[in-house]
Amino acid sequence: MRICYVGPTSRQAALQAFVSPGVELVARRASGGPPSIESMYDEYLSVPGIMELAMELEREGFDAIVPGCFGDPGLDALREVVDIPVVGPGATAMLVAANLGHRFSVVTVLENVVRPLENLALITGVAAKLASVRQIGIPVLELNNDLDATFSRLIDVSRETIEQDRADVLVLGCGTLSFRSAELQAAVGVPVVNPLQVALRTAEMLVACGLSHSKRSYPVPPKMAPQPASMAD
Amino acid sequence: MRICYVGPTSRQAALQAFVSPGVELVARRASGGPPSIESMYDEYLSVPGIMELAMELEREGFDAIVPGCFGDPGLDALREVVDIPVVGPGATAMLVAANLGHRFSVVTVLENVVRPLENLALITGVAAKLASVRQIGIPVLELNNDLDATFSRLIDVSRETIEQDRADVLVLGCGTLSFRSAELQAAVGVPVVNPLQVALRTAEMLVACGLSHSKRSYPVPPKMAPQPASMAD
Amino acid sequence: MRICYVGPTSRQAALQAFVSPGVELVARRASGGPPSIESMYDEYLSVPGIMELAMELEREGFDAIVPGCFGDPGLDALREVVDIPVVGPGATAMLVAANLGHRFSVVTVLENVVRPLENLALITGVAAKLASVRQIGIPVLELNNDLDATFSRLIDVSRETIEQDRADVLVLGCGTLSFRSAELQAAVGVPVVNPLQVALRTAEMLVACGLSHSKRSYPVPPKMAPQPASMAD
Amino acid sequence: MRICYVGPTSRQAALQAFVSPGVELVARRASGGPPSIESMYDEYLSVPGIMELAMELEREGFDAIVPGCFGDPGLDALREVVDIPVVGPGATAMLVAANLGHRFSVVTVLENVVRPLENLALITGVAAKLASVRQIGIPVLELNNDLDATFSRLIDVSRETIEQDRADVLVLGCGTLSFRSAELQAAVGVPVVNPLQVALRTAEMLVACGLSHSKRSYPVPPKMAPQPASMAD
Amino acid sequence: MRICYVGPTSRQAALQAFVSPGVELVARRASGGPPSIESMYDEYLSVPGIMELAMELEREGFDAIVPGCFGDPGLDALREVVDIPVVGPGATAMLVAANLGHRFSVVTVLENVVRPLENLALITGVAAKLASVRQIGIPVLELNNDLDATFSRLIDVSRETIEQDRADVLVLGCGTLSFRSAELQAAVGVPVVNPLQVALRTAEMLVACGLSHSKRSYPVPPKMAPQPASMAD
Amino acid sequence: MRICYVGPTSRQAALQAFVSPGVELVARRASGGPPSIESMYDEYLSVPGIMELAMELEREGFDAIVPGCFGDPGLDALREVVDIPVVGPGATAMLVAANLGHRFSVVTVLENVVRPLENLALITGVAAKLASVRQIGIPVLELNNDLDATFSRLIDVSRETIEQDRADVLVLGCGTLSFRSAELQAAVGVPVVNPLQVALRTAEMLVACGLSHSKRSYPVPPKMAPQPASMAD
Repeated sequence: MRICYVGPTSRQAALQAFVSPGVELVARRASGGPPSIESMYDEYLSVPGIMELAMELEREGFDAIVPGCFGDPGLDALREVVDIPVVGPGATAMLVAANLGHRFSVVTVLENVVRPLENLALITGVAAKLASVRQIGIPVLELNNDLDATFSRLIDVSRETIEQDRADVLVLGCGTLSFRSAELQAAVGVPVVNPLQVALRTAEMLVACGLSHSKRSYPVPPKMAPQPASMAD
Repeated sequence: MRICYVGPTSRQAALQAFVSPGVELVARRASGGPPSIESMYDEYLSVPGIMELAMELEREGFDAIVPGCFGDPGLDALREVVDIPVVGPGATAMLVAANLGHRFSVVTVLENVVRPLENLALITGVAAKLASVRQIGIPVLELNNDLDATFSRLIDVSRETIEQDRADVLVLGCGTLSFRSAELQAAVGVPVVNPLQVALRTAEMLVACGLSHSKRSYPVPPKMAPQPASMAD
Repeated sequence: MRICYVGPTSRQAALQAFVSPGVELVARRASGGPPSIESMYDEYLSVPGIMELAMELEREGFDAIVPGCFGDPGLDALREVVDIPVVGPGATAMLVAANLGHRFSVVTVLENVVRPLENLALITGVAAKLASVRQIGIPVLELNNDLDATFSRLIDVSRETIEQDRADVLVLGCGTLSFRSAELQAAVGVPVVNPLQVALRTAEMLVACGLSHSKRSYPVPPKMAPQPASMAD
Repeated sequence: MRICYVGPTSRQAALQAFVSPGVELVARRASGGPPSIESMYDEYLSVPGIMELAMELEREGFDAIVPGCFGDPGLDALREVVDIPVVGPGATAMLVAANLGHRFSVVTVLENVVRPLENLALITGVAAKLASVRQIGIPVLELNNDLDATFSRLIDVSRETIEQDRADVLVLGCGTLSFRSAELQAAVGVPVVNPLQVALRTAEMLVACGLSHSKRSYPVPPKMAPQPASMAD
Repeated sequence: MRICYVGPTSRQAALQAFVSPGVELVARRASGGPPSIESMYDEYLSVPGIMELAMELEREGFDAIVPGCFGDPGLDALREVVDIPVVGPGATAMLVAANLGHRFSVVTVLENVVRPLENLALITGVAAKLASVRQIGIPVLELNNDLDATFSRLIDVSRETIEQDRADVLVLGCGTLSFRSAELQAAVGVPVVNPLQVALRTAEMLVACGLSHSKRSYPVPPKMAPQPASMAD
Repeated sequence: MRICYVGPTSRQAALQAFVSPGVELVARRASGGPPSIESMYDEYLSVPGIMELAMELEREGFDAIVPGCFGDPGLDALREVVDIPVVGPGATAMLVAANLGHRFSVVTVLENVVRPLENLALITGVAAKLASVRQIGIPVLELNNDLDATFSRLIDVSRETIEQDRADVLVLGCGTLSFRSAELQAAVGVPVVNPLQVALRTAEMLVACGLSHSKRSYPVPPKMAPQPASMAD
């Protein structure tokens, strides 16, 4: 089984550790997008490149695709253009979190994605389980200056979220820091879902079960649909 | 007051009739998008060009922007990148319909937008008033062969929607045919909301009232935000 | 176009400034109601007079009616008895607020309308976007003693609402003070919707678009319906 | 214990059979309302008189009040002006129905109250359990021509409601015919809730339990509140 | 009329005071369950015994059954196995609370039932009216050491709930302490619903009205259904 | 990794094919329950035995538990008594289905579980995505007479569900027939989720990710909690 993560190729080794033995994880970067995703503006800029790449990946024989953006930008369109499973880390992490407890919160580092993530919970159908979306209040430009300080702040915000918003499960909605979700889980004492990890494992599960997204929900774009015979004459 | 409709310039004259006397309506086409919008794939392809155009329109001094796609693709990102009102025809038509009756339905011609429009109602916050989204079941390639036949089919589907889904108000979610909404209203006996018309009038209203979208909901993308002084050193 | 505001005639000049050039705004007081609206009890006392006036206004040829009470008392009945648009300031302000941001709050001065306004959001179908309804906690008898002090308190409560309830848009639900909504908007930095202003502009829009409320939602009362021929014998 | 039913005094004997032995049921007609309630217009006309009567009944020492209109017009205002329990037949019947099965429907005879009853379910907080509101489609003027024919039609509509809307419990929302709810229950095989009967019994229960509506939800109208001492000087 | 309370027989005298004169209240303990109910684990252990007892009570001619656990464990199954009304104190108290005000909260003593009670509100269909479920934060082992101290803590938590969660009505979800609900109501100034009392009175009401739960919602278990004739051959 | 399926041991071989290579699947039957699960009555009878078995399995060192009943009876209690993941086939199948399309339906064979499954969707937090729960209308006693006829009927009902309820994804809620979900998927053309398969794979995923259910949502029952030191004196 071969799964493609669409995002920085530098993460390939770390992500390989997230999948089952025997599963090949390939990281591939889409062309044309912005260098980082910090806003909806960035997300939309990235979608056309990801759509093109997704079609290419299907032609290459990949079994599933996991776009690397937590906000799941363009997920519906990606599912229109390919038949293999496209698994959104944001939606999937929320659904897994909903399976682990009464209510969950998302903790993230970016102000700009808070409201879009609330909308993602609505679209995904689990808004009833969403306690809150919180961000840590550090300006984007300072996030990477001191990753340990950022992580420490994340722990504090996570604890506030658990107490004040009554979240029993957390989703860690942050690219780089998501690799430290186990550490956060140990610190705060509730399950912390790593979106990339559960998205990759869910992709595996869908392939193993012979499942993919419904083409009734995500029909082939008319421009791509095979022409009926009468039109070819 | 100058309002820009982002879409086919051929519609400029017809749209001018929709706004108040003294309001200047300019139609402008974004670059880089697909020739028509028939799917989410098409919508996402169109968004980067619309975002660039929106920033240009604000610099040119326009008072408000009405993107021409009923599905409101990229509305959140457009509102991140400009301060002047960006009024989505889809969301606005649904909100106006909610003001006119107990429940409303959207009737459209495109299979691919049915579920996205249900999601739009959710995001817009009026899902509780949405009776249904219906499409007329004519293949895209045949829609324009006989516009009168398509319109006749639209009347039939509208009547079914009123009776079977108990819709008291309709939103006509179809580009070309939306110019015939008054005709449809006369035929079916319930209010029929024309998304482009109410979006343009709502843009006027917002400008007149000194209102625009909240920048707390749609913050400036960090990459575009002015650098704090300490960062410039 | 002639629109009637049902409420204190002393407001006519101020309200004329809210509508488009060329639109005639007439303020007319209904008979029989209480001198002011401070409770649901007051609201219900006022409805019979407003219903009678609405029918008279339609006979006089008015194009639309805007009842002056923010709580929209009797809106459903008013729409039963006339065919011209009856635009409720409360419902309309909420729908416009829903179009401007992620979530909105209503700030008002009257304890007695807090819960009715939450119900109005439910009925209007935008409860999913309502962050809260807040009131300022000043006894009714003291509200008008010092309007500036009341307004200053309103600013404080508005700021709390934005921070604590995460409201991105405000609706100013207060008769007299609503004329200072622009001032409040400048003070708090989020859009502040003036219910009377958007109700009047929405009334204009509906008339211009040939729209009114659905008579399927608000059927003519049987007692007023034309008698069938067999009954006339 | 003395409970007052606000409605036609001709019903007093029949209603006495609905309450427990030892409870005195008094039917009293409010002044000033329309001869019958067939629309929201009629409902609002009736509310001022019912409010005045409610205050009088409290002064007379009644223990609870049951307004006779199924649509619960003015219930919030009635609860503002008295402290004794005011029990709405519509809300109460829906809450009892919610206790008896998975989903319930209301079957009624009046087209004009269908949508208001859907709103009542929303306000009452049980919309999640409401399968549908159905009416029988007989013009008001013909309803009483042949009550047996009307009842027979009600049975047919009830059966359709059970099968097509998957209602497991019915609420019989019709004045005169509600006295035949047991007969309807026997005919259709699911519980049929008689709004007047359960409202009267609920009034008894509240009095026996020392309960009434919350004055935080329904505060005393400011005009009726006792003046603070400082105001009397 | 004879109603059975399923729970400690030591409560029989106190509960007899809750029902109407002429109604016989019998307390009967189910066999096989745990000595007290402090968790969902305890609740499930108790259900098989209550189901057996319920069938026995119906055979003995009881008119209605009120299981003594506030969390309503197994209510759906109990209603499958008998035809007489089975009235759950938790669901019933919530429905009565919904009838008394805008929003209600449940205050309880057990951490383990907080989330199950939120689920119960969902299933009962009144989640829209639920402000919160709060518990007092005293370890189970210490609850009965000093009942007055526990009750005093309950008053404090109730006040916080009213102020912070904006609850206008309370449901007292605690076995022993529920007998002091009138005292709590006097202390906090909002209606306090005693689940056992309203469940017993509702059982009376249902019997008096000829109502019971719908067998379409709670069908007879196939193993208990009478065999069709063709199967008996 | 060792996962235990709680249900008929005869299924062990078939279920082993559902898990990843290297994962050991053990089927174990709980004691004391009914021979089959056809109603909520049966479900509750089975829970005490499953709870005891779950504690035993944790002591034996199993990594995760998958109870075999689709209705997830007692899932909350099971999660109270063990720390290892307990994965409910019903909730998990619904969450996976929510990830694959716009709306899903459950098709099952048992009338008695239809409404409980609607409640399960509510509790799981995905009711917004549930199109319907349908059952095939064959008496339990006849289900196994002709499994092919039953399956053929299941295909028919599935097609009706897709067309009439607009379900884009199906969950096959039936023990024996769930092994033919791939066959059903091929017949109806939309994804068909096999609850047992996705529950087992999800159990694997959780173990691999170091995740389990939140003990804040499912606290240890007080009777099982370690006694504080002061209690041991």
